[in-house]
Amino acid sequence: MTAAVYCALVHHPVRDRAGETVTTAVTTLDVHDIARSARTYGVSGYYLVTPIDAQHVLIDRILQHWRTGAGVQRMPERGEALSLCHAVHALSDVYADIELREGRRPRVIATAARSTGVPVATFPALRSQLADPASGPFLLLFGTGHGLSQGLLESVDLVLEPIHGPGTYNHLSVRSAAAIALDRLLGCRS
Amino acid sequence: MTAAVYCALVHHPVRDRAGETVTTAVTTLDVHDIARSARTYGVSGYYLVTPIDAQHVLIDRILQHWRTGAGVQRMPERGEALSLCHAVHALSDVYADIELREGRRPRVIATAARSTGVPVATFPALRSQLADPASGPFLLLFGTGHGLSQGLLESVDLVLEPIHGPGTYNHLSVRSAAAIALDRLLGCRS
Repeated sequence: MTAAVYCALVHHPVRDRAGETVTTAVTTLDVHDIARSARTYGVSGYYLVTPIDAQHVLIDRILQHWRTGAGVQRMPERGEALSLCHAVHALSDVYADIELREGRRPRVIATAARSTGVPVATFPALRSQLADPASGPFLLLFGTGHGLSQGLLESVDLVLEPIHGPGTYNHLSVRSAAAIALDRLLGCRS
Repeated sequence: MTAAVYCALVHHPVRDRAGETVTTAVTTLDVHDIARSARTYGVSGYYLVTPIDAQHVLIDRILQHWRTGAGVQRMPERGEALSLCHAVHALSDVYADIELREGRRPRVIATAARSTGVPVATFPALRSQLADPASGPFLLLFGTGHGLSQGLLESVDLVLEPIHGPGTYNHLSVRSAAAIALDRLLGCRS
């Protein structure tokens, strides 16, 4: 039993290669992969944050296919994962929805691949906090593009340390980074 | 400094939903995501195993675009990851190539999401082995579809324990499972 943990995949505000704040397009496999990781690690909800209405139409079509359409017959476990997904227009909608469900505003934890100038928490330190059921709810933010905007990073409660391998290369896909972060924070250990 | 570790994404022989041995199609994002994870965690080579010639043409087009084509200008770090990729027709080609490069046949480690009836090694136990540079080379096998065929699982040197979250749901994407496995085996720990 851990605290309630939610996650959100942010398509705005995020950085492009040059550091400018942009809105990215939704990648279909981000919806599937992160939903499957979220379901595996007991996450309570997975928000897809994009201000673009046409992208909500795309997300709704994916979710309908797998939750109630032809996909549910062929692969019911996919619908089980995608039932965690909610498309929203802005992070404020995520905060409000979690507060409605949990009776308390979430503590917001940002992830970043780069060094951001903001003090960071280690994975083991956050894992310890999550282990206390009374400490939640928590919301993990994952950024598309080249990561969450600097303004957003400076506004959250906590920024997690970057994921490192043995070298300096740090260009994991957001799907992989989310899977690794959830495993480090919530995975069972032998 | 750890042992040399290679990985392979197997499209044949793998299981379909009913447990029959099949050949799956290559998924473009599997090429990218697992190459990026492999590069992050210092893996020496990433083999895409498929007997289908037309799939080799597809893989070659992806690799050319990002290694020497238009992609390398826009996103050089992607080419750096994809330079680890090799398309081969069968696992025997992988074993031979690693033996050629390392002077020794690799120890072959299979991964499986399900319980297979084959004795398994834990992640910490294998992580300890990898920490000894003289123990390699190692080859990690990841299965597409519904996982590596039973015959293949019974022929390898070691099968790794399944990745579990707190519950029983175990339908991670192979991209996510590979990322988590590499992080558990080779990731830096705070």
